[in-house]
Amino acid sequence: MRKYNLGIDIGGTSIKIGLFNLDDDLLDVWNVKTNKHSNGSLILADIANSIKTKIDVSEIRALGFGVPGPVSKNIIYSCVNLGWGQKDIVKEIKQLLNDENLLVRVGNDANLAAAGEIYKGVASGYINAFMVTLGTGIGGGVIIDGRVVDGINGVAGEIGHTHIDDIHNLECNCGKKGCLETVASATGIVRLAKEYLKLSDRPSKLRKFEYFSAKIVIDLAKAGDELAKEIISKSMEYLAKVLAKVTYIINPDIFIIGGGISNAGNFIIKEIEKHYYPLVKPFINHTNFSIATLGNQAGMFGACYLIK
Amino acid sequence: MRKYNLGIDIGGTSIKIGLFNLDDDLLDVWNVKTNKHSNGSLILADIANSIKTKIDVSEIRALGFGVPGPVSKNIIYSCVNLGWGQKDIVKEIKQLLNDENLLVRVGNDANLAAAGEIYKGVASGYINAFMVTLGTGIGGGVIIDGRVVDGINGVAGEIGHTHIDDIHNLECNCGKKGCLETVASATGIVRLAKEYLKLSDRPSKLRKFEYFSAKIVIDLAKAGDELAKEIISKSMEYLAKVLAKVTYIINPDIFIIGGGISNAGNFIIKEIEKHYYPLVKPFINHTNFSIATLGNQAGMFGACYLIK
Repeated sequence: MRKYNLGIDIGGTSIKIGLFNLDDDLLDVWNVKTNKHSNGSLILADIANSIKTKIDVSEIRALGFGVPGPVSKNIIYSCVNLGWGQKDIVKEIKQLLNDENLLVRVGNDANLAAAGEIYKGVASGYINAFMVTLGTGIGGGVIIDGRVVDGINGVAGEIGHTHIDDIHNLECNCGKKGCLETVASATGIVRLAKEYLKLSDRPSKLRKFEYFSAKIVIDLAKAGDELAKEIISKSMEYLAKVLAKVTYIINPDIFIIGGGISNAGNFIIKEIEKHYYPLVKPFINHTNFSIATLGNQAGMFGACYLIK
Repeated sequence: MRKYNLGIDIGGTSIKIGLFNLDDDLLDVWNVKTNKHSNGSLILADIANSIKTKIDVSEIRALGFGVPGPVSKNIIYSCVNLGWGQKDIVKEIKQLLNDENLLVRVGNDANLAAAGEIYKGVASGYINAFMVTLGTGIGGGVIIDGRVVDGINGVAGEIGHTHIDDIHNLECNCGKKGCLETVASATGIVRLAKEYLKLSDRPSKLRKFEYFSAKIVIDLAKAGDELAKEIISKSMEYLAKVLAKVTYIINPDIFIIGGGISNAGNFIIKEIEKHYYPLVKPFINHTNFSIATLGNQAGMFGACYLIK
């Protein structure tokens, strides 16, 4: 009897597999190391084998996959971090598990993080949400009417690469300059801080560090360091400008802030709100901003949400 | 027997009523003058009376309404042009037509124009679309998975009020400065042209006009007037920047360009594309841009689409 759903989040370092019953209860979670040898050609076989050691394939109803790359209509365009080009993992996993009748769905990990937060996290009960994940890079996920929005090229939610900064205009990994990711991700905050330190000789405890992380900039800002406060404020101003544009385009019920930077909690939300509201007046007086609650399990929950 | 659907587009000057059979054929269209006296309190009664002169109410299955203001979950927040504040026209029209069993849906006119183009226009066959209407102001409409996106505050699609121009930073009707509408609507193109004429003494045939319209600027640009070309190029650059952001947020199957400015046809699309593609590389090589085909009937068709 088919009594399990599997939510599987494939990351560049490890794969998180969640076993759910059909009542949406999470029964077990385990990790599989991501084998990137041979252009990641063994990853799906590793997943299939790992599942078989845990349960009988005939008991699986469906599998949802989150992957770190653009996806549209269940087809992966590419996952550079995994060594994958275009890939149809729906077909491949059915073959590996030797079951044509399995339901399989695939989504981008940032989109699925948003789905996870709607399914089991802070946005539970909402049907329209935009989640921004402020990590090493910036991911974004869009849920409309309870459904994950991929976009025709799998680019929906990718606000990290929207142009926002003409002043510092830092180079981005994508080849463009001035992308949101260059000033508001964890690495972006550090880059922006270095620009500020270079452009003036204003005092700051940041100058004591040879190397520093975004967390240090945030902690110093929280502790009252004026330059650090200004850096975080400017970084969140850039983010707020993009979130205001999200509002004028889809006007979601809730914005969810996730990723490492979101550990700064209300401090970050207040900074975003300060810059956001003047940009959306007179149309909007109140918008829900919340910190994500599922951490690195969001993608796994979102993968299960896809197959509900 | 209920055999008709009505698509009704309420504008500031006139109301367009389309009579459809249940096979989606448009059988008749007529106009009713918009009576704005007494804060528009007679508008719905005028519509109800006009319908009754044409058909028997018992033959109506459903009515879809497009209105010039923000709408969410069939409730109008306000329609300044009509004199309306918050309004539940679902309830009111059922009372006026004395039939509780009518299906009634309401949407914002710009969103419904997008729906109309999906239903019977240039975007027929697509399920994800973004339409921008370049008229006196700028309207925008979002369709995801074939459904109209209102947004929690009815603001979805309202890209006219996203901040885009820090250089001229012209005042917008909304109270903010530098909104897209101030540089890319019909009035915006004229304002931008006046800025260009003021800021240099470069020659242009535009200088011969005491007053001029956006159409004149476009026609001169088409005819090779260098300054006019530059003005239109800059205006469409601003629009392209916002459409690139739309791409990074919802990545629609197609962008539809409507409103008076869209009469310039491919000339406008080429200008948009020139500025758009560098902003979306390396993620996107091709995006569909099309000129709207339904003209001022788009809203009426979209209103009917709502009740399909």
